[in-house]
Amino acid sequence: MNNLKLIVEYDGTDFFGWQTQEGKRTVEEIVEKTLSDVLKEHIKLEASGRTDKGVHAKAQVCSFTCERNFDFERLPYATNYLLPSDISLISCAQMPDDFHARFSSKRKTYEYTFFCGQIRSPLKERYALRVPFEVDENLMKKASKLFEGTHDFSSFVVSKSKKENCERTIYSCNLTKENDLYKLNICGNGFLHNMVRIIAGTILDVGVGKIKPEQILEILESKNRSYAGKTLPPNGLCLLSVDYEVLG
Amino acid sequence: MNNLKLIVEYDGTDFFGWQTQEGKRTVEEIVEKTLSDVLKEHIKLEASGRTDKGVHAKAQVCSFTCERNFDFERLPYATNYLLPSDISLISCAQMPDDFHARFSSKRKTYEYTFFCGQIRSPLKERYALRVPFEVDENLMKKASKLFEGTHDFSSFVVSKSKKENCERTIYSCNLTKENDLYKLNICGNGFLHNMVRIIAGTILDVGVGKIKPEQILEILESKNRSYAGKTLPPNGLCLLSVDYEVLG
Repeated sequence: MNNLKLIVEYDGTDFFGWQTQEGKRTVEEIVEKTLSDVLKEHIKLEASGRTDKGVHAKAQVCSFTCERNFDFERLPYATNYLLPSDISLISCAQMPDDFHARFSSKRKTYEYTFFCGQIRSPLKERYALRVPFEVDENLMKKASKLFEGTHDFSSFVVSKSKKENCERTIYSCNLTKENDLYKLNICGNGFLHNMVRIIAGTILDVGVGKIKPEQILEILESKNRSYAGKTLPPNGLCLLSVDYEVLG
Repeated sequence: MNNLKLIVEYDGTDFFGWQTQEGKRTVEEIVEKTLSDVLKEHIKLEASGRTDKGVHAKAQVCSFTCERNFDFERLPYATNYLLPSDISLISCAQMPDDFHARFSSKRKTYEYTFFCGQIRSPLKERYALRVPFEVDENLMKKASKLFEGTHDFSSFVVSKSKKENCERTIYSCNLTKENDLYKLNICGNGFLHNMVRIIAGTILDVGVGKIKPEQILEILESKNRSYAGKTLPPNGLCLLSVDYEVLG
């Protein structure tokens, strides 16, 4: 039995997220069906995690097992030909039996992109949120750094999917500006449901002066979703990478 | 009678270009219809030029006349609400009677974007051409500069739409690299049909070693379309700006 690691890129705009759902267009279902056709056996993918409706991925990672032997490095070429243009298999590699895309993952990196503008921009808004007011870059940078470290993120998770253990470690959380795009890059050992989008919404609240950077720590301590900012829309969010090696 | 200058941004992916065509989705027809509804009179746009099927525009410029008075600076807000999400009016300003988006234009700037990769990338290919081989950046930079100046561009126009006078002046033609994206930025006093896409295709021929930079001059002199490179696809092309002031 072969155990494989697959890297998948997708433009999330026209998907109801990663996970298969009856009657909805999802990345998982399309990739599973297409791989099953190519490999001529039933393929079941295990992703590093789900992405929600409209969220993009530069490098989602999945694992799957397969009896059939194949030139697996060539699998992306054979499969992309059959996949729709908004999904692409980037690479496929054989792994030890104990590799699992979700359980073996050590770090994930997400990026949330936004820009300021009074007028909508068709060329930017597919991959970035438009914010119709000005923001203070330095305050947002200061606020971003306060998310680094190990915290209980109960204030930063969809209330209904609150888990028993909301402790996560953020290795880095940096806001940068490239031309007129703000990019919040956040790397951690794991993320709760909507966590990145709520963190980004809270940093934006700092940017517009609604709250002060220092209040981030109070919001973390409150363990109360209603103290944090809004969940920002999915178009600005992209899963950049999933890492499997232990750091340093 | 008011004479107005309108700046329009659009994602060209789902349009059959700028110009109205029976039964096709075009930017011109949608903007004219929507402005006519908002201003309650028949609006006829004059664009700086057409863009082809699939070509994007960051700042297409049009002029139109209108009897009705309106707070024209607010027109984009009122109209964007009714336009589809792939078109946006960026600004509207009153102009002297003799302003005409096409006849008054002095310079236009286009950008052609491409990247190298064996595997397709859904997150890049909406706005950039994927080239499945490596290219020599320095040779392409050298070739780009050779297009600057006043030349007869008969070799760089769709054969069927060859005009009597194919002389145009290119003020600047620069290739730059941002992360993994190559951007060919070209500014001139006017462009023939498909001229930018054929120039980009010829520069790419230099990049892959098919021709030498110096041969650009021979191709220009030949005045023969068959000597130049391929017309690259529209997804990589964007009309960046149209300028109306005489330079220094």
